[in-house]
Amino acid sequence: MLNFSFHNSTRIHFGEGQIEAIKKEIPTDARVLMVYGGGSIKKNGVYDQVSQALCEHEWFEFSGIEPNPQYDTLVKSLAIIKEKKIDYLLAVGGGSVVDGVKFIAGAALFEGDDPWDIIAKQQRIQKALPIGAVLTLPATGSETNQGAVVTRNGHKLPFSSPLVRPQFAVLDPAVTLSLSDRQVGNGVVDAFVHTMEQYLTYSVNGKVQDRFSEGLLQTLIEEGPKALAADTKNDMEVRGNVMWAATMALNGLIGAGVPQDWATHMIGHELTGGHGIDHARTLSIVLPAVMKVRREEKREKLLQYAQRVWNIQKGTEDEQIDQAIEKTEQFFVQIGVPVRLSDVDLNESHIEGLITNLKQHGMVKLGENRDITPQVSEQILKMAL
Amino acid sequence: MLNFSFHNSTRIHFGEGQIEAIKKEIPTDARVLMVYGGGSIKKNGVYDQVSQALCEHEWFEFSGIEPNPQYDTLVKSLAIIKEKKIDYLLAVGGGSVVDGVKFIAGAALFEGDDPWDIIAKQQRIQKALPIGAVLTLPATGSETNQGAVVTRNGHKLPFSSPLVRPQFAVLDPAVTLSLSDRQVGNGVVDAFVHTMEQYLTYSVNGKVQDRFSEGLLQTLIEEGPKALAADTKNDMEVRGNVMWAATMALNGLIGAGVPQDWATHMIGHELTGGHGIDHARTLSIVLPAVMKVRREEKREKLLQYAQRVWNIQKGTEDEQIDQAIEKTEQFFVQIGVPVRLSDVDLNESHIEGLITNLKQHGMVKLGENRDITPQVSEQILKMAL
Repeated sequence: MLNFSFHNSTRIHFGEGQIEAIKKEIPTDARVLMVYGGGSIKKNGVYDQVSQALCEHEWFEFSGIEPNPQYDTLVKSLAIIKEKKIDYLLAVGGGSVVDGVKFIAGAALFEGDDPWDIIAKQQRIQKALPIGAVLTLPATGSETNQGAVVTRNGHKLPFSSPLVRPQFAVLDPAVTLSLSDRQVGNGVVDAFVHTMEQYLTYSVNGKVQDRFSEGLLQTLIEEGPKALAADTKNDMEVRGNVMWAATMALNGLIGAGVPQDWATHMIGHELTGGHGIDHARTLSIVLPAVMKVRREEKREKLLQYAQRVWNIQKGTEDEQIDQAIEKTEQFFVQIGVPVRLSDVDLNESHIEGLITNLKQHGMVKLGENRDITPQVSEQILKMAL
Repeated sequence: MLNFSFHNSTRIHFGEGQIEAIKKEIPTDARVLMVYGGGSIKKNGVYDQVSQALCEHEWFEFSGIEPNPQYDTLVKSLAIIKEKKIDYLLAVGGGSVVDGVKFIAGAALFEGDDPWDIIAKQQRIQKALPIGAVLTLPATGSETNQGAVVTRNGHKLPFSSPLVRPQFAVLDPAVTLSLSDRQVGNGVVDAFVHTMEQYLTYSVNGKVQDRFSEGLLQTLIEEGPKALAADTKNDMEVRGNVMWAATMALNGLIGAGVPQDWATHMIGHELTGGHGIDHARTLSIVLPAVMKVRREEKREKLLQYAQRVWNIQKGTEDEQIDQAIEKTEQFFVQIGVPVRLSDVDLNESHIEGLITNLKQHGMVKLGENRDITPQVSEQILKMAL
């Protein structure tokens, strides 16, 4: 196991009816900005529940955060924050809303020239508005971690600061019942690949981390399809298990003390930035190709994954690995996401542009060994055709 | 899954050489009291490392905390805290030292008549001195949780407060190399039974929690014996895995959203309080008996435990459960701890006194269903003869 420091201070309130916890979590004298997305929370009752919980607070709202939150939208919130003297941000939505609010939290108190520098120049945030989160779409884990991804002009870029980790997060699986199958499926795949990024590397004998990761993968494999099947999709236990797995998949715990990959994400970001593919659907396309191209570097962990997660015990090592990759793809197909570039109407002619963008974004040494050069990324994209 | 709130704010610094993290963790202007036990830290280099890390701090020391920290010892620290105007406590030791420091932290600022009321009357602590912990014995999980157990006149009693959760914890597996086999074995068993108390109840379909618990149990089963075997006991990976598993076993995570038992602990406390048996050795005696006496109530989880933790797939359900209980006992024996009251020279004549003490301490409705009455506890103790 590698040395590590771990800290996750977010207070979690999990379960049906927990939105009312907001009332006690946000200081009574706070001036709150509720930030949300396209307005689905007005149809599914979440907006009303949050309003009710905030009945003793002074609060305002800012909406219109897109999937893959856009810089140009986010900075528009700064005027109302200044005008209304907002000192607490409440994100109500999925990972995009939470990510967007993280950027707003830093940008509102940023003392540099241009808030875009937080991302473009990775300028360190010195202070940030406090954040609370009401999660409506289990997927990104953003509700308890310190990372965020923001998009500007087709460039999708990450930033991170302990100051933007939400102070509290409400996880009510009941609010996920109104999600579309596409949203649910994307969330399951996102959480699955988050886990794989921290698991499928090389072994440092981190037994707790490995077992926890395998537990999350197994949970998502068992519960993900149920969250989509007609007879089980409204089962609150299923929804709860998916939601808790998604949070645990990227709260820092399973990645503490082990190497991490993230090449699938970085390559996937270019598919979203350049071609507008849903984040999770870029991951389901890229991950199987990464498994194939990095087969030798990841051999030990691929075998462990085959045996422990998929319970594949028969055949040679190579046959077990083949089966595990195939089962991963079958799982993605079952969840309803694409597994090839051709599934989203992209072909070999698009690869050059994707590689150019990767280089432009400095993504030239990816993976747990920092050896996924643009040449290897190209191999991976070709494998994904 | 049950509704829950979860919060664990302790900052963790894990790995060799992390003791130096103390320097930055404790405010420079703090007046620190280093609290430790019988002085083993002076022989194994930990005292020197901590002293070095505190070289820029004003600090004092208080030693002599016993295994099962004694109230009478702990309150003696209050004089030096007052005299030296201590405002930060640094626990350096195992769970007993950390537990003792938790009590001191509350007692130092307690405004009631008698600090013993914190335990005896479960009076809520309103404030507490901040605590840091340097863990030397992986076992209790106390280094990141909010619970503690204190003993007075043979009565071993728990208390809990979020105010006494350590602000940071240093987990350096290298410092565990000087522990005796007995201490290491006790720690492995303690962590194992902590996990079982939160796992072996009735199912609420908490898939993440179950998988995480199973992962911890498997890790302890695999690594525990290696931490005792001559050829592997100095392996830092083994020590690291045991240490991280012990912390995760009782940091609140695996128990969030699931029913919890704790009958084994409460019955075990009477064996320690009344007969001075090491804490872990009371657990290894009581747990197998609890598994046998509560076999029907715990049937579903016993079967899951058999299949997933011990990979027992053959035989009838009852045969699988029998095997799982037998394997648990064999594991304890392998670790070098007793599994029967007779192993520690207790017999039927001692049971009445133990039950009297349980009643006196209000432990009359134990277990996840609150149905372990003194009569059932008596059955359990008889089963353990």
